[in-house]
Amino acid sequence: MREDNAAATFDMDSWVCPMPLRDSPTIVMGHGGGGAMSGELIEHLFLPAFGAAADAGMGDSAVLSLGGVRLAFSTDSFVVKPLVFPGGSIGDLAVNGTVNDLAMSGARPIALSTAFILEEGTALAEIARVAEAVGTAALAAGVTLVTGDTKVVDSGHGDGIFINTAGIGVVDDGVDIRPQRARPGDVVLVSGDIGVHGVAVMSCREGLEFGTTVCSDTAPLNGLVAAMLATGADVHVLRDPTRGGVAATLNEIAGVAKVGVALDERKLPVPDAVRDACGLLGLDPMYVANEGKLVAFVAPEDADRVLSALREHPLGVRAEAIGVCVEEHPGMVVARTALGGTRVVDLPAGEQLPRIC
Amino acid sequence: MREDNAAATFDMDSWVCPMPLRDSPTIVMGHGGGGAMSGELIEHLFLPAFGAAADAGMGDSAVLSLGGVRLAFSTDSFVVKPLVFPGGSIGDLAVNGTVNDLAMSGARPIALSTAFILEEGTALAEIARVAEAVGTAALAAGVTLVTGDTKVVDSGHGDGIFINTAGIGVVDDGVDIRPQRARPGDVVLVSGDIGVHGVAVMSCREGLEFGTTVCSDTAPLNGLVAAMLATGADVHVLRDPTRGGVAATLNEIAGVAKVGVALDERKLPVPDAVRDACGLLGLDPMYVANEGKLVAFVAPEDADRVLSALREHPLGVRAEAIGVCVEEHPGMVVARTALGGTRVVDLPAGEQLPRIC
Repeated sequence: MREDNAAATFDMDSWVCPMPLRDSPTIVMGHGGGGAMSGELIEHLFLPAFGAAADAGMGDSAVLSLGGVRLAFSTDSFVVKPLVFPGGSIGDLAVNGTVNDLAMSGARPIALSTAFILEEGTALAEIARVAEAVGTAALAAGVTLVTGDTKVVDSGHGDGIFINTAGIGVVDDGVDIRPQRARPGDVVLVSGDIGVHGVAVMSCREGLEFGTTVCSDTAPLNGLVAAMLATGADVHVLRDPTRGGVAATLNEIAGVAKVGVALDERKLPVPDAVRDACGLLGLDPMYVANEGKLVAFVAPEDADRVLSALREHPLGVRAEAIGVCVEEHPGMVVARTALGGTRVVDLPAGEQLPRIC
Repeated sequence: MREDNAAATFDMDSWVCPMPLRDSPTIVMGHGGGGAMSGELIEHLFLPAFGAAADAGMGDSAVLSLGGVRLAFSTDSFVVKPLVFPGGSIGDLAVNGTVNDLAMSGARPIALSTAFILEEGTALAEIARVAEAVGTAALAAGVTLVTGDTKVVDSGHGDGIFINTAGIGVVDDGVDIRPQRARPGDVVLVSGDIGVHGVAVMSCREGLEFGTTVCSDTAPLNGLVAAMLATGADVHVLRDPTRGGVAATLNEIAGVAKVGVALDERKLPVPDAVRDACGLLGLDPMYVANEGKLVAFVAPEDADRVLSALREHPLGVRAEAIGVCVEEHPGMVVARTALGGTRVVDLPAGEQLPRIC
């Protein structure tokens, strides 16, 4: 029996909110958007509170050396609303999201844990439907579901189904893929159409209707990464542009590696249906979430063969080179627009599309 | 873009509820209690739905061989209410719960992931308080927080803070601890006072008041397990009796190993304050959750030295031998009562104390 726990001795009244972007000392939806406010929550609240227990990185995926094996380890919770949307469900996202986080560190995903938080009153049929999607997605990704947990919360204190997955994978010798490796000269590739997942989820929210059905791009990217690595190319950085879209991802990489990114906006593959829907909603496709796309920074001499490898894979047929990494404007992403001007592509502050994953 | 996902093709109308214990086809609180209904949800709904993707075990902790390293992998979500209670908080539970699941497979816990689901409107000070408890508990347990995730859900669709942790650990050569290894003759040990955590959480729920303050026993058990293994004893089974208490844990082990368990009820260490509170609430301490205790099945020739090792450790001073493993009544737990009679200690059906962890 302990009285000396941190929670009990914490002085709620004298605590000073350390968050530059927030006046109001409570959580808002924007803290979950994967943009500046999310980063601030981690940097100014979680990391100082975790203290010496936290590894400085605390990135999407950690790589640890254990007994000679390089192991990637990652986790994500999924709270998407609605649970089922065109092209997928929370079950697909829960598997593919963690598989992709592992793949973005160059790991071969091996095993997943699944943890469900169920709301009292949720239909068992709904849970079975989602669990089947989890099983199907895991088979497709080639990962095994090895351990799990189920909790139930009272009606009105959850929202149907929340899923957390954590995953482990093995990073093969010679593979070194991380944001810090971005360097001037690198070619920036994207594996296909952007903004699809966010628009698909929004399209089935109450009160929103678009002319065309856009299906989520949720997919496991480990096969695509394997195809890129099989070329023998020196892939420096991989990242899946989920919350906050391509804009947030490129800003993060530019910030971590202290390089600039110069985009050619005309090269960004944006489907007409996504462009139309974004116009209607007042969104920029570059800020909309993807769940089956990756962004890669590749040494210039390797860019062509990696682009070819992407395009030969079913998940990369619409891959494009969208820009280059530069010495100028470190930490910033600048786009050349269709009209020949330039604009800064900022890190989004909060959340444009809440509960998209 | 995929149309062939499992969720989309699932036929909600023709789905037949496969759960023997349920007439009503929705989730109830009992499904989260760690008893028969929880087991049924996993066996009859999750495992069939996951299909070939699920490893048959899907236990509290999985042990995988990766490149010559035996790796334990486990996950738990925490939804305890209230977030802070006498002796601990959801932050302590989130660390110690997963550390203990790893330790119960004989692993040395190494690294944890932390994933927060925050409800809009939650005070940042409350989150900082819980995050500090996570950091303090991780330091105490000797594990590093290496990766994480944060999601935000709308007000009224969560409950302040939910935390998921997953953990990885290394199982040393020669260690083989799992429920299947229980065998007749084994001595059953418990590391100390039971029922403490459940009573501590209940004691601060609205409308409930007891005479004494009972503090949660939340604690990391990896050090205690290391002390047991350092004796060189053949420890067959370890399990931390959380949801469903000692009763659920012993029933699970008896069921998996197809052995009987014969308890001596008088040997169970139950503090007076727990006994009094349980009397008031109409509960049996054997069914109340613990968060800093373990149950061990040990070869009879090793029982004395393991019991001594337990008692020499600060977390095991009140350890007791509470029974033996027998050939009779396989799958059943039978207790000799204080009055000299015997009674069957059933697996609890649902949940006596909801949202206790």
